[in-house]
Amino acid sequence: MKLVRYGGLGAEKPGLIDAEGGLRDLSAHVADIAGDVLTDDGLAKLRKLDPAGLPKVEGDVRYGACVGGVGKFICIGLNYADHAAESGMAVPSEPVIFMKATSAICGPNDDVVIPRGSLKTDWEVELAVVIGAKAKHVPEADALKHVAGYSVTNDVSERAFQTERQGQWTKGKSCDTFGPIGPWLVTRDEVADPQKLKMWLTVNGKTMQNGSSETMVYGVAFLVSYLSQFFTLHPGDVISTGTPPGVGMGMKPPTYLKAGDVVALGIEGLGTQQQTFVADA
Amino acid sequence: MKLVRYGGLGAEKPGLIDAEGGLRDLSAHVADIAGDVLTDDGLAKLRKLDPAGLPKVEGDVRYGACVGGVGKFICIGLNYADHAAESGMAVPSEPVIFMKATSAICGPNDDVVIPRGSLKTDWEVELAVVIGAKAKHVPEADALKHVAGYSVTNDVSERAFQTERQGQWTKGKSCDTFGPIGPWLVTRDEVADPQKLKMWLTVNGKTMQNGSSETMVYGVAFLVSYLSQFFTLHPGDVISTGTPPGVGMGMKPPTYLKAGDVVALGIEGLGTQQQTFVADA
Repeated sequence: MKLVRYGGLGAEKPGLIDAEGGLRDLSAHVADIAGDVLTDDGLAKLRKLDPAGLPKVEGDVRYGACVGGVGKFICIGLNYADHAAESGMAVPSEPVIFMKATSAICGPNDDVVIPRGSLKTDWEVELAVVIGAKAKHVPEADALKHVAGYSVTNDVSERAFQTERQGQWTKGKSCDTFGPIGPWLVTRDEVADPQKLKMWLTVNGKTMQNGSSETMVYGVAFLVSYLSQFFTLHPGDVISTGTPPGVGMGMKPPTYLKAGDVVALGIEGLGTQQQTFVADA
Repeated sequence: MKLVRYGGLGAEKPGLIDAEGGLRDLSAHVADIAGDVLTDDGLAKLRKLDPAGLPKVEGDVRYGACVGGVGKFICIGLNYADHAAESGMAVPSEPVIFMKATSAICGPNDDVVIPRGSLKTDWEVELAVVIGAKAKHVPEADALKHVAGYSVTNDVSERAFQTERQGQWTKGKSCDTFGPIGPWLVTRDEVADPQKLKMWLTVNGKTMQNGSSETMVYGVAFLVSYLSQFFTLHPGDVISTGTPPGVGMGMKPPTYLKAGDVVALGIEGLGTQQQTFVADA
């Protein structure tokens, strides 16, 4: 299933994408794509519905982040060897983790606001893992059972805020609208191998990132297991698993986004996002 | 007002502490001490109630974290000059910020679980600021108007996870139960000056921290204003403002918590917490 949330910001309704690519409303069946709806039982109930029998939503709609009620928005740093190299950093001997503020979450095609004073706003296409079942001390072999599905994130980053403004990356990762998630939450049964997904990102139509989750240093199952040693993962938690090479910071000379730039990105089978970057009002 | 949340974990009810120190139930008036209840308007409604007319709650009750629906649990690092010195780090030229997972939040007197494999679980008494009104690009002079009130946190920290396990402090700050908040949310009208509050912490009855918010490097108003330059603060967000000297990591030799240890802590006018540290089951 491809699950979505659509409608105005903060008032998104649950929906699914039918076999013809049409949007169907799920409001009569679940309140949100969040929490218990993401468990195996919750998803099984949705799977029993006949999409053709659900109300069709016509016309242009805004898509929100494909998962609601996100408790933790966990990011993995330097998780592609080539990206670590372009960042001038070593591949870490175990995963680097940091948090992105959940207030940064927005829809896949919403405008992204370049923060006041920013000179180094950068892009990062990432595979997002949405947790479906509580996970604590989970062995790697069982880890994927705790995954509801996958999506796309742009881990938008302000590099000066991240690395030149005193300690810890949170500051450069958590600005409002720095966390587009979507368009779809693709349930895990439809993703044969999360480590074999092509991923790409363009800026104003020019390809900047063109990689595959195959070159991830720490794969999805390892990450879910690893994180669950430190804290409990809950349904709706999102893990953004790091970016392949090709970010602005790694270019010679480094190149960053300015108001009016259009960033498009996507992952094989998981859909695409497109954001216009705008100045802070 | 002294607002509280009481009852079983995950099923806390809202309450307030009356003039005699008794617990009164607020369930008939608000669903939770969270979100809009924390705005000036929301608090004004509660202030109009006669505590003597509210149902009295008798007997032993568990107190939960004094604020619900926390979106961001933001911590400030190295915010007391003496604590920076004992940590062997310089006072930062602007605030160091990191996130603690909201899944770490627990009640002020709940057991704290020492994670599996932990050898360096440490304590940090901190003044917590609870946001009451949305704040973005707020000048320092107006910042305190965005504060609902204050509370106590123990920013429990696993030092090896924090600093020896590859990059970013999140890992050592976010373990389950590492975020006791409470006992009370004391509304800001009852705190004459958040920069003149004595704070203390004992381990098994022995005083380890004995400081004052007076020696904070970046004060509450500055922090709210500063953070609001990076992202929007929302009602219910919690800022834990850093710890004075006296943590285990700073002792010679460093001394950490073991199962059975009892940590008590408090801040002038904001109440006390007491946690028993236990092994992970």
